[in-house]
Amino acid sequence: MYGWENFLSERDKLHDLQWGKKELSGFGSKPALVLIDMYYSVVGLTREPIFESMKTWPGSTGLEGWAAVDKTAELLAVARETGVPVVHVKGLNNGMKPWVHRKPRASTMSAEMKRKGEQICDEVAPIAGEVVIEKTAPSGFQGTPLAFHLISMGIDTVILCGESTSGCLRASAVDAATHRFKVGVPMDCAYDRTEASHWMNLYDMHQKYADVIDAEAAKSYFRKLAAGSEPALTRMAS
Amino acid sequence: MYGWENFLSERDKLHDLQWGKKELSGFGSKPALVLIDMYYSVVGLTREPIFESMKTWPGSTGLEGWAAVDKTAELLAVARETGVPVVHVKGLNNGMKPWVHRKPRASTMSAEMKRKGEQICDEVAPIAGEVVIEKTAPSGFQGTPLAFHLISMGIDTVILCGESTSGCLRASAVDAATHRFKVGVPMDCAYDRTEASHWMNLYDMHQKYADVIDAEAAKSYFRKLAAGSEPALTRMAS
Amino acid sequence: MYGWENFLSERDKLHDLQWGKKELSGFGSKPALVLIDMYYSVVGLTREPIFESMKTWPGSTGLEGWAAVDKTAELLAVARETGVPVVHVKGLNNGMKPWVHRKPRASTMSAEMKRKGEQICDEVAPIAGEVVIEKTAPSGFQGTPLAFHLISMGIDTVILCGESTSGCLRASAVDAATHRFKVGVPMDCAYDRTEASHWMNLYDMHQKYADVIDAEAAKSYFRKLAAGSEPALTRMAS
Amino acid sequence: MYGWENFLSERDKLHDLQWGKKELSGFGSKPALVLIDMYYSVVGLTREPIFESMKTWPGSTGLEGWAAVDKTAELLAVARETGVPVVHVKGLNNGMKPWVHRKPRASTMSAEMKRKGEQICDEVAPIAGEVVIEKTAPSGFQGTPLAFHLISMGIDTVILCGESTSGCLRASAVDAATHRFKVGVPMDCAYDRTEASHWMNLYDMHQKYADVIDAEAAKSYFRKLAAGSEPALTRMAS
Repeated sequence: MYGWENFLSERDKLHDLQWGKKELSGFGSKPALVLIDMYYSVVGLTREPIFESMKTWPGSTGLEGWAAVDKTAELLAVARETGVPVVHVKGLNNGMKPWVHRKPRASTMSAEMKRKGEQICDEVAPIAGEVVIEKTAPSGFQGTPLAFHLISMGIDTVILCGESTSGCLRASAVDAATHRFKVGVPMDCAYDRTEASHWMNLYDMHQKYADVIDAEAAKSYFRKLAAGSEPALTRMAS
Repeated sequence: MYGWENFLSERDKLHDLQWGKKELSGFGSKPALVLIDMYYSVVGLTREPIFESMKTWPGSTGLEGWAAVDKTAELLAVARETGVPVVHVKGLNNGMKPWVHRKPRASTMSAEMKRKGEQICDEVAPIAGEVVIEKTAPSGFQGTPLAFHLISMGIDTVILCGESTSGCLRASAVDAATHRFKVGVPMDCAYDRTEASHWMNLYDMHQKYADVIDAEAAKSYFRKLAAGSEPALTRMAS
Repeated sequence: MYGWENFLSERDKLHDLQWGKKELSGFGSKPALVLIDMYYSVVGLTREPIFESMKTWPGSTGLEGWAAVDKTAELLAVARETGVPVVHVKGLNNGMKPWVHRKPRASTMSAEMKRKGEQICDEVAPIAGEVVIEKTAPSGFQGTPLAFHLISMGIDTVILCGESTSGCLRASAVDAATHRFKVGVPMDCAYDRTEASHWMNLYDMHQKYADVIDAEAAKSYFRKLAAGSEPALTRMAS
Repeated sequence: MYGWENFLSERDKLHDLQWGKKELSGFGSKPALVLIDMYYSVVGLTREPIFESMKTWPGSTGLEGWAAVDKTAELLAVARETGVPVVHVKGLNNGMKPWVHRKPRASTMSAEMKRKGEQICDEVAPIAGEVVIEKTAPSGFQGTPLAFHLISMGIDTVILCGESTSGCLRASAVDAATHRFKVGVPMDCAYDRTEASHWMNLYDMHQKYADVIDAEAAKSYFRKLAAGSEPALTRMAS
């Protein structure tokens, strides 16, 4: 059980049986950990259920978001320990027309609160030597030098965390696979506002672009590489 | 009712209420119609239910696929009548490592059948003067000159049809929005193998990247432009 | 006479005669003015001949650089008057491996002076409402959202100024043509450290990617558009 | 002596002395050999001096072109022997507006001759297992999956041959450096119609984007890698 099974139709379940089990693609020997859009504005400043949190931060993902931030913080610590390069991706507001097809909503939020909302959460904030890439697109690869940076480090595998599962994380996973990187998405490090979107995008990524795993499997992969042992195909314990 | 409502959780429905209704973004004055991956191998050579069709064509979308091909053929006819440029996007197999993270399956299909499967369905096949773009990625924009071609024609709006809703169509919609084109997806011209993926990707596109409409609305948009009248914001009749 | 004739070999002059005169491509109805890398570090803080200026700023282009900055300032004023969108492109140092294949040189320059060197010259500095794009590549189009921004404004023509003629300006002109924008390069708004590179890159751009004109021709083009009259093919007075 | 010295002005020579000698960047452990636009139409079907050859093939580079084709054939043989992946890049005419800013010239050439002109010269033609990438841009990287293909093979170094030195070869070298590949250009495998452009573009590439070497140095680099020895910084014997 991954979690998406609840959202499939009966026909879909039958189709999956006919189509056959997805086999994992596996990872390479030179991963990077890429964190996508892990701001305060999508979790709020305090840990509250989504409908509470939305009162201040309309885009909040609530407690599920905070749980994923915490899991990502654990994985980030292991990446740093094991020498896996870390890249932080965040939005850039440079005055260009935004990509999102959504009317901006009136906001009574103070400029200071807005600035706070745009900051990466302390739990997963960049440290010296970690590159921060700013984007004006859903995907961390579009209109940014992310691919150049990964190539410069000889990266062959991208482990992606962040939000939203159905937006910037998904778009980045598609582009990482397009660039022929091997892609891993720890499902407990991904978060979204919409449950059905969260699960169905994990399903889609697992079918087409990535191995959906969990944070423990990603940690184990980083540690095995650091120990010089060949990583086995890692999968989420089910 | 669009159709995705059935796949949302109770919390999601409540969240949508709180988040507020999506307003349509609207289209521009210079559209192109872009058809994505409308091959025989994803509908089969004959019109059969998906589980029948899969016996020969594992990737088939069955009768739902054929219904979308027929709707697209109608829209394509109107695009040609009204002078809307048409671009066909299809896969290219040039010996590169494929993007898809899926083990190739053994196949007993003859080389001739495989070639047939790679052909665009007659109903929506290119005619002289229509550019065909070949891709090695989910998105029609990645590793192709599609954006260059659209810029060369002064396009501001991309109407996207084809499959799969959760794969190449979705990836192309994300990139079209990233490039700051206005994006329309006629839902009855989109098809997929997985019902939940089909509907949730339409939902995601409508929330973030595109106006999800129907073929009638797209036809009406093309016709109003050709008649010189300002297109109103078009939406799916509900 | 453009100026590059002095750098051609006798065979080249004969070849140009055989090959035939380059005809201008002409411009469109929706231009943007794009300024590339117009920093203090490539002209110095004071107006001095190149070999003087290099003592402090090794990359300086000296008085020829300042002359081009002044011409660009005039053109910029006309762009602002006539409502032509302006985009400023500059380098970004975000810790990534740089693209340049050149060993960094030891520098005794103070951090303050370095910062000053990275600033756009006051004469051509951005004002409110003008987008600044930061790049980690020679070309303003690579790893940046410049193309997205131009598409969002319906731009069909890019007028390029800045430096170096043989580096970032040239790379940006190639990419502008690749994207199917019409391209103009006012030769008196382009500058370089190496005379032969300056002239031969103008020659190459004029042969392949752009109409090389002068600042007066570009001003006249902007003014005719603002006045609602059809711009003629503009060329450098010879 | 490289050859470009003859095209520099006196000031340029003095500037180069002040600026300091370019140090080679060196190559990596996983090269690919990429051949750009090595068609018959740019050398003609028979080996004739440029002005003779131009009578039939206006874009011909004449005997200098053929000399570079022969040198490239030698290097290609060594790449194949030593297991260095080879990629062929050529133009694609798919009906899109071309990138070149040049009026098409009337031609009385037969359709058959035109087709012949578009074929890669037999001396350097692709063999089974070598990927051919088609482009609609000067650079082999723009609007193509070339970068994806190089990433999929773990390439860190690109050795570029072909033509024109001042056009597609140069544009590809800039993009290879932009993508953070190490770049080598064997100068005797590069060819152009214009002598000054040929030499000044080699100069520019050597200053900014690539190590300009010769075919012997590239062969030696491939052979040392195959023999398991560390390649020294390779340079053209001067």
